[in-house]
Amino acid sequence: MTGFEPIPYRDGERALTGQLFRPDGVPRAAVAVFPTIMNPTPTVESKARALAEAGYCAMICDFYGATPRDLAEANEWADTLRADPRVYRTRLRAALAALGKASPGPQQAAIGFCMGGQAVLELARDGAELAAVASFHGLLDTAAPAGPDAVKARILVCHGDADPLVPREQVLAFWDEMDRAGADWHFHSYGGVRHGFTNPDPPPGNPVVGYDASADRQSWAAALALFDEVFG
Amino acid sequence: MTGFEPIPYRDGERALTGQLFRPDGVPRAAVAVFPTIMNPTPTVESKARALAEAGYCAMICDFYGATPRDLAEANEWADTLRADPRVYRTRLRAALAALGKASPGPQQAAIGFCMGGQAVLELARDGAELAAVASFHGLLDTAAPAGPDAVKARILVCHGDADPLVPREQVLAFWDEMDRAGADWHFHSYGGVRHGFTNPDPPPGNPVVGYDASADRQSWAAALALFDEVFG
Repeated sequence: MTGFEPIPYRDGERALTGQLFRPDGVPRAAVAVFPTIMNPTPTVESKARALAEAGYCAMICDFYGATPRDLAEANEWADTLRADPRVYRTRLRAALAALGKASPGPQQAAIGFCMGGQAVLELARDGAELAAVASFHGLLDTAAPAGPDAVKARILVCHGDADPLVPREQVLAFWDEMDRAGADWHFHSYGGVRHGFTNPDPPPGNPVVGYDASADRQSWAAALALFDEVFG
Repeated sequence: MTGFEPIPYRDGERALTGQLFRPDGVPRAAVAVFPTIMNPTPTVESKARALAEAGYCAMICDFYGATPRDLAEANEWADTLRADPRVYRTRLRAALAALGKASPGPQQAAIGFCMGGQAVLELARDGAELAAVASFHGLLDTAAPAGPDAVKARILVCHGDADPLVPREQVLAFWDEMDRAGADWHFHSYGGVRHGFTNPDPPPGNPVVGYDASADRQSWAAALALFDEVFG
């Protein structure tokens, strides 16, 4: 496992490129890694590498097919993509299909950071065939809440309690939504921790983020422990 | 590490007995293990053994100096002990002192289950010199909330969201209390999980409990990961 393998895929007309990190030996499972609103960044790449080192075939997914110039452009692209949950979910599912071709096998999971954390929850709400999803500082609200028995994935949410983008009301609403859907969820809340806590090198101009070494370490350990349980 | 070593200690007139499990080699730290309202049980003993296997010197603490006949008697004894937080905390601190003598060293932590989970939070609120505490399905309310900067211990709470003894209002009040105190806290909530989720063999006559294998496994992994971080 050294560099990544580019995985071209499409969502309709849109050309996208995954970044695949293969483990040594037979993969324990395939894991889709959804990046932040900035699309792939060094922090997210380090997480995909860590998954490969832990025995998983990990693919960083592509939200846009391009790299946003700055946060303002990323916000514009993300707003467009997320305006219709069906369009958004189709984009996300295209990544799962590409990963399934690149690393065949029935066992898939997904993790995501910030917008990527929201993305994996959208996939879970949409009933994607994922054994588990882990959201790191993802938004919890949705335009299309999960219906009864829709969620197939085990859910782990790792959340900064002081995240200005996710007030406690949104946390409680998420718990209620997941309970109504009959989902199997674990929710980890870190006191005093802000948005983007896994990223030691946040993009400039974003006042809501704050790296937290302990939350980063503990949330990662939690995701690996969940995967250990789910994938044996 | 085979059987336990009895550790006699006192809280005033009350004679108490700890159960000490030593690791092979030099302990990474000493961990006080506070049992459920039933005082030491096989489940709690298995946790203390697991700590010793992970390199810690673990002592199961004694709430009463005797074994309650049944849950009704345990409730009676516990109500008496907890009626005054100063009396309760003095009893708990006697265990830390006994552990400190049995396994000298500056590094102590505490974990606890049900009433024991509440006990370790009481110690944290009281400013006990503990590097970390972990509460498993413990009650979160208190008669003596933590004052500003009182809490020295890192705090991990592992909680069943469907615990009938701990409604969500109590969860939110606990977060507020910890924030006001400036504590460093991580809170893990497990959807649909009830009280006593670590105990596969609960005492009869207690309708609020329910074992949950995943919450048991994941909460234990979380505590060990926190100790890895704190004790290096």
